[in-house]
Amino acid sequence: MAVNLQAPERLLPVGGVVVGSACAGIKQRGRDDLAVLAFVPGTQVAGVYTQSHFAAPPVLLARARQADSLAWVINSGNANAATGQPGEDDARAICAHAAALLKLSDQAVQPFSTGVIGERLPVERIKQGLDVACGQLQADGWMAAAQAIMTTDTVVKGCSRELQIDGRTVTITGIAKGAGMIKPNMATMLAYIACDATVSSAAAQQVLQHAVERSFNRITVDGDTSTNDCVMLACTGVVDHPEISGPAQADFVNLCEAVTDVARELAQAVIRDGEGATKFITVRVTGGSTTEDCLAVAYTIAESPLVKTAMFAGDANWGRFCMAIGRAPVSDLDVNLVQLWLDDVQVAQEGLMSADYSEALGAAVLAQEEFTVTVDLGSGDAEEMIWTTDLSYEYVRINAEYRT
Amino acid sequence: MAVNLQAPERLLPVGGVVVGSACAGIKQRGRDDLAVLAFVPGTQVAGVYTQSHFAAPPVLLARARQADSLAWVINSGNANAATGQPGEDDARAICAHAAALLKLSDQAVQPFSTGVIGERLPVERIKQGLDVACGQLQADGWMAAAQAIMTTDTVVKGCSRELQIDGRTVTITGIAKGAGMIKPNMATMLAYIACDATVSSAAAQQVLQHAVERSFNRITVDGDTSTNDCVMLACTGVVDHPEISGPAQADFVNLCEAVTDVARELAQAVIRDGEGATKFITVRVTGGSTTEDCLAVAYTIAESPLVKTAMFAGDANWGRFCMAIGRAPVSDLDVNLVQLWLDDVQVAQEGLMSADYSEALGAAVLAQEEFTVTVDLGSGDAEEMIWTTDLSYEYVRINAEYRT
Repeated sequence: MAVNLQAPERLLPVGGVVVGSACAGIKQRGRDDLAVLAFVPGTQVAGVYTQSHFAAPPVLLARARQADSLAWVINSGNANAATGQPGEDDARAICAHAAALLKLSDQAVQPFSTGVIGERLPVERIKQGLDVACGQLQADGWMAAAQAIMTTDTVVKGCSRELQIDGRTVTITGIAKGAGMIKPNMATMLAYIACDATVSSAAAQQVLQHAVERSFNRITVDGDTSTNDCVMLACTGVVDHPEISGPAQADFVNLCEAVTDVARELAQAVIRDGEGATKFITVRVTGGSTTEDCLAVAYTIAESPLVKTAMFAGDANWGRFCMAIGRAPVSDLDVNLVQLWLDDVQVAQEGLMSADYSEALGAAVLAQEEFTVTVDLGSGDAEEMIWTTDLSYEYVRINAEYRT
Repeated sequence: MAVNLQAPERLLPVGGVVVGSACAGIKQRGRDDLAVLAFVPGTQVAGVYTQSHFAAPPVLLARARQADSLAWVINSGNANAATGQPGEDDARAICAHAAALLKLSDQAVQPFSTGVIGERLPVERIKQGLDVACGQLQADGWMAAAQAIMTTDTVVKGCSRELQIDGRTVTITGIAKGAGMIKPNMATMLAYIACDATVSSAAAQQVLQHAVERSFNRITVDGDTSTNDCVMLACTGVVDHPEISGPAQADFVNLCEAVTDVARELAQAVIRDGEGATKFITVRVTGGSTTEDCLAVAYTIAESPLVKTAMFAGDANWGRFCMAIGRAPVSDLDVNLVQLWLDDVQVAQEGLMSADYSEALGAAVLAQEEFTVTVDLGSGDAEEMIWTTDLSYEYVRINAEYRT
């Protein structure tokens, strides 16, 4: 059901990164559900983490260990969330087991989990899985890892880019999972990006935050933020070029753009594979007084059940858009200045349906699998863009039948 | 599909109020879609109106005319919203026609509309309908009016109460419509309450605001606020008792409670008839630091698509509740103090699933058509209660097929 989304043909190895996967039988047997990524010493790790009050024990532990990290242990099938001190103990035990296998300190292993909330992890089975995964670490293990971290995803999500820094080729590869409970207030659960550029710790964090702000923080399926959201970036420094240390450098900007490009492709893949999605919708808001106003209008449209069901039905319904714009939490909005387009078709101007608009024109746009809704607020120069899905019978079916 | 909701057997006439209805053929023929309520001189009218930026022309006109009002003209089938100056002209023309028939000044007629957004009203047909409706005004016309204002409603909504003030019987009757686009940020579109008590203008507004704050401002179906929400209260003063003028009077408190009771029954009827509803769910949040925190947690639960689909499926899923509580916009929340109950069954304590909780116990609660979700935040004395529905296939069907 994913909208124009194919699994990547190939994910490029990244210098200084080895990857392993295994089946620990956490939720179901017969498919991998455990992935390990390990990095060479000297690697700088950056991360952004969910802002949920109920941030899961592994998230809290991963955040605390970021500065020391040389490995990521990721399981699907169980989120180890709302599990309290026992859940933290489980995460620590799993990390300690991985650390022993990888000959790292316990602090150097960051744990990540996704899946059912509120249940204890099967620690012994995961330890046995780690024995397998850590025994077959390889540079070319990214595709198997991307499969192992999937839950309700229907398509494997990953992509690679290369860029030149100081005459040398730097490789970036990223993988992600996510299909529902998607309004990352930081990131969607489980996106992992690595590159072999040489980057200072502070600059790595700046690069990641720049990228996330333009990718994972611009998507919503259902407005529901997960307890386990994390986006991670590892910079191994295997490629020998002058260290990237801050925004003043041209190479910082180049790396930033490339990582953002990877993050955006991953974030959009999450939306394309959104639960029950039949449409991939870009919502663009221009002419706002502030960025916050643009985002408020964009998210109100993107999360309105009435807009989403109209998009599902292909109903070019100006009334539902004006309802959503009307309730958006912005302080001053002159509705007489509002304009709306579906792709290039102008639906409304001066707050009213355009004289030369016909529903046939709007319906033709909405019949496509991908289109852009543009709203101009007519009050300033700010603009923002986010990505979302429609709301279908299938969304209800998946979430009525699937145990989060 | 409405949840435990029957049409009222009878709606009591209110002294000083006459009601008429007619079929103007606005959207479909063969059913009434126009209602007129007219009041005796001396009547005090109070109102609360949508806070949508796109408040419809009739809403703006009704608000401006409140102090002079002696009549309400209400149509279903077309909301006269996002129609600009032409829409305002239409509303004025309709009011002028009604005013001439009723021998009132134009200013004394308030217009209200509900239905499709963004289309012009069929003014001539409505004028012809007004000729019929105003020609058969009667004290006993409430039930027909309640039918005429329905749109996607499946059950007529109305109720009556009597109370004693100074030894005399005061009657309150109210009607409402609404099934989708329900998160009144004031009121659901079209609720009309009248009583024959003698009340000052200021006190009438206080009574209505008290009632709305505990009824229409505590419900949500889909989080979508209409462009046309209004709740109105007319106090005709036909019953001769000392004027009610402020909160210090015992009779003010009694009237306030009775009107609130009517408003709450109407608001709950809107939820019971919510689009696609299979459950009537009370969400109660206790132990908050502030009322705002309690409402923020309650609405985040009530509007979460993942909670709503789990309720539809009867899935007693602690994970989805803790996800929703976790993303609620409250500044400080100690999740280790959070407790959750489904009716009397304790699901979680100290932020974790209760040791003696079993899913069978939770599932038995959710198998009912009505139940209460109670969350205790453990941080203060504030508490709040709201009402909502689940999210079903039927909600998607209705909103994919119905043109708002």
